Amino acid sequence: MVQTLPVIILVSPQMGENIGATARIMSNFGYEELRLVLPRDGWPNSKAEEMAAHGAYILKDARIFQTVDEAVADINFLVATTAHSRYMNKPMVTSARLVDQLHSSTGKTALMFGRERSGLTNEELQLADCIVSIPVSEKNPSLNLAQAVAVLAYEIIRVEKPIPLREPVSLAPKHEINYFFACLEEKLVASGFLRHEKLRATMRKNIRNLFLRAELTDQDLRTLHGMINSLYKSSTTP
Amino acid sequence: MVQTLPVIILVSPQMGENIGATARIMSNFGYEELRLVLPRDGWPNSKAEEMAAHGAYILKDARIFQTVDEAVADINFLVATTAHSRYMNKPMVTSARLVDQLHSSTGKTALMFGRERSGLTNEELQLADCIVSIPVSEKNPSLNLAQAVAVLAYEIIRVEKPIPLREPVSLAPKHEINYFFACLEEKLVASGFLRHEKLRATMRKNIRNLFLRAELTDQDLRTLHGMINSLYKSSTTP
Repeated sequence: MVQTLPVIILVSPQMGENIGATARIMSNFGYEELRLVLPRDGWPNSKAEEMAAHGAYILKDARIFQTVDEAVADINFLVATTAHSRYMNKPMVTSARLVDQLHSSTGKTALMFGRERSGLTNEELQLADCIVSIPVSEKNPSLNLAQAVAVLAYEIIRVEKPIPLREPVSLAPKHEINYFFACLEEKLVASGFLRHEKLRATMRKNIRNLFLRAELTDQDLRTLHGMINSLYKSSTTP
Repeated sequence: MVQTLPVIILVSPQMGENIGATARIMSNFGYEELRLVLPRDGWPNSKAEEMAAHGAYILKDARIFQTVDEAVADINFLVATTAHSRYMNKPMVTSARLVDQLHSSTGKTALMFGRERSGLTNEELQLADCIVSIPVSEKNPSLNLAQAVAVLAYEIIRVEKPIPLREPVSLAPKHEINYFFACLEEKLVASGFLRHEKLRATMRKNIRNLFLRAELTDQDLRTLHGMINSLYKSSTTP
């Protein structure tokens, strides 16, 4: 995990909706600092507020700059984003390697995104310590601005918060599992299902495997015993 | 990378804009198949087309379904998405582990997303083989629908060669699983096991979960049908 999450910088964003969606996703992923360089439609922007939803506090705290130079002045490690692999004589990484790059510097880091139409200029890219690109299809390489922010913001936090695989359960002890298998197999023999002597061993193995994969609890075993007995009992009572 | 990219299923999406943004990001990342279950504002939807930009061809090919069951009928491995960790007695993974899960099955896979407001219902989540969640901030856990699609669609294509969790198997398609459940439940009702009206829904859920956890193949289903029929048949023949 990255110690402090990067500042997000949008350079001359055109659509208020994208600024708002950026604030929302920043908030979703725990980012705090948004900087805008000359937003096209001025500031504040009602469309941005609408799209930000619960991320509106990020817009409120956003800082507005007149130039990119001012916006990046206090940044120690600046990552610029580009859709195309433009060779700029500086490190280019795919997004999957972004975190390694951010770890290579202490201090304040930032991700900088360009205009919806045209991205960052070569001059703006030159300011960066590293250029990152998202692996897009050649058929349609043009990402929506807020989607590009979402993907990179996610890339940085994706391994941060593990969620347990499932609610811890107590699996039934093996002797109960084996008792269930014995009951089941006895009834399957009696009912004729395991009548072929030759296939019986394979069948038993397959059936046991199938139920073992289900990671059975005591409750599951009670259900299964109940089911099997219910299905079978009517056949043995007159 | 996953061999064939998953189908994307949106269940009852409310905003055309989100459907369009989904199509655009699918196109950016090379996804092809979009399915919609009962989009709120009907279909086609001009707002969706506007937002899709160069991804409009995905909308054109999108298939519309009246029920989730129909939309997932031919899917072998179904991943459902949820914002909150709802323990459903089935595998829960963070998005960073999504690819491992997809690699555990051959055949057709799908990612299923719920409504903007309320996500997927518990009943819809029950259909899935695995539930994935994106690690969001507690302060603002509510992701925009198209952003959630972007993040998971990206997660799958971001690296090239993951290592499979286990040897891939082809799970039985959902319509066969559901047919098995229907047959089993019919016999359990007839035999008196599901006689308590009140408990019936819970019992059915528990039984379905138990068998879904077993990751059933076509062969497993044949075995189970054989077992159930064999246990049951003697009770109905004189």
